[in-house]
Amino acid sequence: MQIIHTIKELREWRKQAGKVAFVPTMGNLHEGHLALVREAKKRADNVVVSIFVNRLQFGQGEDFDKYPRTLQQDADKLANEGVAVVFAPDEKELYPNVEQRYNVEPPHLQNELCGKFRPGHFRGVATVVSKLFNIVEADVACFGKKDYQQLAIIKGFVEDLNFNIEIVPVNTGRAADGLALSSRNQYLSETERAEAPRLYRELQNAAGQLQSGNVAYTQIEQTAIENLNQAGWVVDYVEIRQAESLEVARVGDKHLVVLAAARLGSTRLIDNLEVSLDL
Amino acid sequence: MQIIHTIKELREWRKQAGKVAFVPTMGNLHEGHLALVREAKKRADNVVVSIFVNRLQFGQGEDFDKYPRTLQQDADKLANEGVAVVFAPDEKELYPNVEQRYNVEPPHLQNELCGKFRPGHFRGVATVVSKLFNIVEADVACFGKKDYQQLAIIKGFVEDLNFNIEIVPVNTGRAADGLALSSRNQYLSETERAEAPRLYRELQNAAGQLQSGNVAYTQIEQTAIENLNQAGWVVDYVEIRQAESLEVARVGDKHLVVLAAARLGSTRLIDNLEVSLDL
Repeated sequence: MQIIHTIKELREWRKQAGKVAFVPTMGNLHEGHLALVREAKKRADNVVVSIFVNRLQFGQGEDFDKYPRTLQQDADKLANEGVAVVFAPDEKELYPNVEQRYNVEPPHLQNELCGKFRPGHFRGVATVVSKLFNIVEADVACFGKKDYQQLAIIKGFVEDLNFNIEIVPVNTGRAADGLALSSRNQYLSETERAEAPRLYRELQNAAGQLQSGNVAYTQIEQTAIENLNQAGWVVDYVEIRQAESLEVARVGDKHLVVLAAARLGSTRLIDNLEVSLDL
Repeated sequence: MQIIHTIKELREWRKQAGKVAFVPTMGNLHEGHLALVREAKKRADNVVVSIFVNRLQFGQGEDFDKYPRTLQQDADKLANEGVAVVFAPDEKELYPNVEQRYNVEPPHLQNELCGKFRPGHFRGVATVVSKLFNIVEADVACFGKKDYQQLAIIKGFVEDLNFNIEIVPVNTGRAADGLALSSRNQYLSETERAEAPRLYRELQNAAGQLQSGNVAYTQIEQTAIENLNQAGWVVDYVEIRQAESLEVARVGDKHLVVLAAARLGSTRLIDNLEVSLDL
């Protein structure tokens, strides 16, 4: 496995790499990331994993500075998975002009759900992922469904800007108690970690309501919010939306997703659960 | 020469095309475009020319509807130049969702110079050219210096978003009397056509002033504006800027460009002239 730090070297390598599958990450890899890598490995012989903590997608007061940088451990894990290249550019390599002047600007969805609480976040994601797509020129890229809104936005700009890449969504990895795997779980105290699976349980409750024919979306959302509040969470949102597009759900929609973001102490957790009413 | 109308067919062709040079156009081709094609031909065996009148870059009240569509004549000219592929998608092929949700958003430069008079124009240009770059996946693309601000914005987003393509600027083609070649020249009446070369003469005057050491930029601009006004033009702007970046020119800058946009009757003409004070 090669660790490549510059765009020039990566492009040189790319010329002879044949079919390539790509997994962009911010490092600090856990089993959730490795599931993405394994999915990528099924799609192409050569897997490229990028590790780059993207300042552009962190807001003021967010955890950019304390976000864990663990390149050596990450590289060891990826070597074990048979990854061909780790692309780990430094900040100057991706943002040589300090200011990013040209951005990929998503539509209003960027200001809804998580975007309402993280202004500029999805513009930063769309922009850096566009850059990485142009650098790696992969055939396929794998993204986790845990970051459901991020996935919707990436599928959106790939479609609207005609990027020649297939986006593969990968199911959320979970701990035995249901907690979605996330780099931010390590910020949780022991007590918080024990409490954390409630977020997923509330999504399951909401999904159960939908499955049983309840169409009072606002009421279902409100129940989840109250349950979380009572258990000491500070809830950003619990929302039922149309699956994939994330448009506002209407009565009669068959493909839904329940999404939530809530803080436990100083740690913000997100999760979601798709619900299909076809069956 | 093939005329290809769909993205799918173009991508199929692209797989075996080797090195490709690309010239995006809105059709209605004149000698200025053919100079771009000849430059492209020097850079790669296979030249792709796109012909697409891009609604996104026309403002309200602009000439989108009356913009000349002359595919057959254009194709004849391009066949003569040894072009491999004309890519002529229809509106639905490039904008299947009617609304373009995700855009490439340029910085403040998009609201200066021509952008001040054509809100949204350069966002529309950056977005459609990004789409075309992702569809054609060319190695090189040629753009005329006549659309100087457009060229600056394209070079800007290619750099900032890491598009893997070389941008080749091509000098402005001119009629014998100096008028820059443009599709819009055909809108001019005979009298207007006789008057039109004044725009370039005023740029040459301004350039002469700069060459002779005059650094009173505003005064030089103002003189050109007054001369045009007196000859019956309605001037949008005459501005001296730093070459390439188009940043505001400061005293001492060696690489400058004088840019102008002005209307003669209902026809808006633009032109520019680079000035290098090195020599």
